[in-house]
Amino acid sequence: MKGYTGRALFVNLSNRTTTVQNIPAEWYRDYLGGEGVAVRLFWDLVHDDRDGLAPEQPMIFATGPLTGTAAPCSGRACVIFRSPATGTIGAANAGGHFAPALKKAGWDLLVITGKADKPVYLLIQDDKVEIRDASSLWGQGVKETEDAIKKEVGAQGLQIASIGPAGEKGVLFANIMTDKHRAFGRGGPGAVMGAKNLKAIAVRGTQPLPIADPEALKEAAKAARDELFAEAFVRDELHPYGTPSFYDAIDALGILPTRNWQRTSFPQSKDLLTYKAYHETLEVKPYACFGCPIACGRHTKIKSGKYAGLEGGGPEYEAVAAFGSKCFVTDLNAVAAANHLANNFGLDVISTGQVIATAMEWYEMGLLTKEQTGGLDLTWGNGDAVVELVKMIAHREGIGDLLANGVKRAAEKLGPKAEKAAMHVKGLEMAADGVRASKGESIVHATSARGADHLRPYASAIDAFGYRDEELGITGDINYLEDGNKAWVKPFQELSMATNMLGVCLFASITLAIKTSTWAKLTSAAMGRTITKDDLLKAAERVINMERQINARFGFDRKDDTLPERFLKEPAPDGRGEGEVVDLKKNLDSYFEAMGWDQKSGLPKKETLERLGLDWML
Amino acid sequence: MKGYTGRALFVNLSNRTTTVQNIPAEWYRDYLGGEGVAVRLFWDLVHDDRDGLAPEQPMIFATGPLTGTAAPCSGRACVIFRSPATGTIGAANAGGHFAPALKKAGWDLLVITGKADKPVYLLIQDDKVEIRDASSLWGQGVKETEDAIKKEVGAQGLQIASIGPAGEKGVLFANIMTDKHRAFGRGGPGAVMGAKNLKAIAVRGTQPLPIADPEALKEAAKAARDELFAEAFVRDELHPYGTPSFYDAIDALGILPTRNWQRTSFPQSKDLLTYKAYHETLEVKPYACFGCPIACGRHTKIKSGKYAGLEGGGPEYEAVAAFGSKCFVTDLNAVAAANHLANNFGLDVISTGQVIATAMEWYEMGLLTKEQTGGLDLTWGNGDAVVELVKMIAHREGIGDLLANGVKRAAEKLGPKAEKAAMHVKGLEMAADGVRASKGESIVHATSARGADHLRPYASAIDAFGYRDEELGITGDINYLEDGNKAWVKPFQELSMATNMLGVCLFASITLAIKTSTWAKLTSAAMGRTITKDDLLKAAERVINMERQINARFGFDRKDDTLPERFLKEPAPDGRGEGEVVDLKKNLDSYFEAMGWDQKSGLPKKETLERLGLDWML
Repeated sequence: MKGYTGRALFVNLSNRTTTVQNIPAEWYRDYLGGEGVAVRLFWDLVHDDRDGLAPEQPMIFATGPLTGTAAPCSGRACVIFRSPATGTIGAANAGGHFAPALKKAGWDLLVITGKADKPVYLLIQDDKVEIRDASSLWGQGVKETEDAIKKEVGAQGLQIASIGPAGEKGVLFANIMTDKHRAFGRGGPGAVMGAKNLKAIAVRGTQPLPIADPEALKEAAKAARDELFAEAFVRDELHPYGTPSFYDAIDALGILPTRNWQRTSFPQSKDLLTYKAYHETLEVKPYACFGCPIACGRHTKIKSGKYAGLEGGGPEYEAVAAFGSKCFVTDLNAVAAANHLANNFGLDVISTGQVIATAMEWYEMGLLTKEQTGGLDLTWGNGDAVVELVKMIAHREGIGDLLANGVKRAAEKLGPKAEKAAMHVKGLEMAADGVRASKGESIVHATSARGADHLRPYASAIDAFGYRDEELGITGDINYLEDGNKAWVKPFQELSMATNMLGVCLFASITLAIKTSTWAKLTSAAMGRTITKDDLLKAAERVINMERQINARFGFDRKDDTLPERFLKEPAPDGRGEGEVVDLKKNLDSYFEAMGWDQKSGLPKKETLERLGLDWML
Repeated sequence: MKGYTGRALFVNLSNRTTTVQNIPAEWYRDYLGGEGVAVRLFWDLVHDDRDGLAPEQPMIFATGPLTGTAAPCSGRACVIFRSPATGTIGAANAGGHFAPALKKAGWDLLVITGKADKPVYLLIQDDKVEIRDASSLWGQGVKETEDAIKKEVGAQGLQIASIGPAGEKGVLFANIMTDKHRAFGRGGPGAVMGAKNLKAIAVRGTQPLPIADPEALKEAAKAARDELFAEAFVRDELHPYGTPSFYDAIDALGILPTRNWQRTSFPQSKDLLTYKAYHETLEVKPYACFGCPIACGRHTKIKSGKYAGLEGGGPEYEAVAAFGSKCFVTDLNAVAAANHLANNFGLDVISTGQVIATAMEWYEMGLLTKEQTGGLDLTWGNGDAVVELVKMIAHREGIGDLLANGVKRAAEKLGPKAEKAAMHVKGLEMAADGVRASKGESIVHATSARGADHLRPYASAIDAFGYRDEELGITGDINYLEDGNKAWVKPFQELSMATNMLGVCLFASITLAIKTSTWAKLTSAAMGRTITKDDLLKAAERVINMERQINARFGFDRKDDTLPERFLKEPAPDGRGEGEVVDLKKNLDSYFEAMGWDQKSGLPKKETLERLGLDWML
């Protein structure tokens, strides 16, 4: 009779203490869990005046009320931190099997502060928490780290999140990896973990999950699975071909970033990078995260050529675009090699590919010379150079040391001309999802709390696939090329955020396959409260506003909501958006209006925060 | 830019550790502070399966957002605990100067758990917290304890809350005293503190208070002071004559408890216990709590007779009635002596007087014999016997040991006939405020979270003085004798609870002198948020419902909402309520309807908790 709430494990690595705290039930009421509750706690714990790598800064892992349950696609956890790359709030989210293990160990939140005096890893077995020596693991790749820890403490039921050399060396786009290839990605959480001398977190959970109404959950989960496979894209593309199937769709729409966004389609890659070529060139096995009937992941092994034998998770669509089309590379083996190495080094494949594409354009512009690259030929399309750069960046060797700080900082070093090719927002590199031909995505990229972001929400899914959803009020015809009129982004963004709060996968929501009301039913059953679709969206709206307010504390406002100049001034050269640039002001105006954010500052109005019960943030 | 929130000091006496926690801003948004936030925290910390004296049980002192500010009557703190007398939530509230000191030391909440291995006192000087030896203080009275601690650590700015022998010996109606005579009273908080081996809490605070808008606060405070003195009762009675002035008013109305409620007026006490007699018989000085322009307190010294020279705070109205009319005593010197001794022993004067009055009726009934009393003649009106019993109860000597457990437990020992004279609800003794002739008060006594309660709200003020208040919607003519129709109790109860949440005095609200909207302005200025009168009342409604839910966890429901049989079956013998009994069912039905509580269980309906955002408590 204590209400649905959460339990937090606090670990201070500086003094090696652990404490347990109960999370207020009101936070689960208002923010539901996962990213919502983690962000709320982050508000209280983060230091505004210190950067993301300061030992005092917290990193907060969180599971959601659906994590590890019978709800489909429920294997997600997030980590909230201050991004060393952007200075904004950092929010990374991973699937795999780590999240259910953490939750089954009895922890809804894991809060890590401080810095160990030497490399350590954390071993959490239900209530038993140990800080163990990781000196012998330092310098190891992610696979080797996972294998060594499993050997040390037993593999049975053990799930591990770890960093590779990239995180150790403070590469500003280092990830935390789990299941060897699933990534807590974007914004450098791996660098934050490295700065704490924390190599890995190993978790074994054996407790039953707290589910208020297991029967109702089971029923709603069945409905959710049915809805998932009633959606053609999920059933006919994502399930059988995984994310590589995006490549063809996105290229066909003419929004594929090519040659560092100079072009928006890549006809030269036909039959080389497309999903059929992918499944022929590489040895492919599908991979599913916990409880996922989609199984969008691919595990591949390189069959021939100089990289033969290299294997691992992916490359997923983003990696194919990042190391492939963006770098004008058509050699899928090189792309796969870059991907496998990057994952094992704990690099973010999206940022890494973008950094390399930018470096190639700088090379083309003469801003980077062969002397500076140590003899490496960064001509467009040189797949082997891409693979080499991945290694150099991860270890901060040669030119890799400059590039390891991301395109924004590297451009600052190379002089004013360099910014033109530095495709980033707020210091986070662009992913591979159209902007000029997807004006919804232009809003997402410009305003997202964590910088250039294609996922909060994945607006190009609405644009590209023409999704409509009555429950979200997205019923009209949306002209993907139209500037302004961006109110529809709001409910879609809320649904996306809700999935991060519940601990489920974006691919089950951005496809609009599972209804918002079905998510609400699942949540109600898990939490034992009546949560409507509108409750769900409003809770998400709170979290979106909270992140906006946190960034405001860090000095961010409308002035920072911008896009790379290329999108504002260079008309898209081909595809459906041919000739288009982005009218940023028009888009921001209409979006801020819908959000209840002040037009001048771009920050939530007092009345908006009052409506959401967040005016105590003022 | 972190929002209005509070800071809590946790002291675990078992392992002598102290920790600091920030309280979620949402709690200050939803429950405002003081009793509201303390009760919310209590929900998380209390152990349902252990009694109030178990070392693990928390006692939570709390100040409110107005405590210590320029708002009038802002010297209040509360303490929340599980009552060892009733088994319900315990809530005691004191004025004086302790609360502002605690707040100026930087603490909104002080949470004490565990039990020291020997007597200790807590010394809090801003952030410096010490657990000091109190072996030499054990057994001392409250005055001697305060003086000794001041001698030890310096009197300047030091404020002390302590227990006397009564708390040490686990008298179930022992208080915590501050300023030597102000009481955290009712329900035995002194026994809880004694069970922790905690003799005293001494606080020195030197920090400025966090006030969001000092100018707005100053302005609202001026309005509040003006409103206070525009009210005739405050201006013409409470201010010049203090609470003893109640005696005449209540006797005149014929609701004065006399001879243990056998009678409801006491003509024999005219010119002996009335407020003019009081000011002539005793040497009287007014006393004011922090920031209080009313100064209702009296300090008295006995001028003549066998108790000459005894001095202290009070007797206030409740003590005059408890030791006087209830015991049929007309000797004001004996009444004052009993009061001064009881305060210094750390006894609750209300419960102590009621226990003695009950003992006198048992003596009359032959249920207590002179043999059992150790030769003490408990004939009605024997003031000296009252004084003797006070001593015996405080030290649990002779018959005092039985009586120290309160009338309910004592009656259980004396057999079924004894219950008739045991005037209590849920184990808390009656105060001195009419029930049969004040049907609003019958609701308060039957349903209050802490047992027989005359203050939550002080409904007889509405009844007796005919107060009306448009802001509270109390505009109709209320027939004080009418059963049923108790909806008006709800807003008045909310206003009363609000004062406990804000850290201000009930005498500024139960007189309806200061407008609810003025309290809201004061609160807005202190917290830096727009808080309307309705926000204030709704926040209080949340806390009232929360206390109801906490008691539900302890097993309480409608079956426990009852009154002493005398009020249900014996018609009032005189006064304006002559011939009246209480129709409890009718009153409960109408009140539960207004509260949104289920008629059968008497507990908040799901929809009520949902409306208040409290359904996570289900």
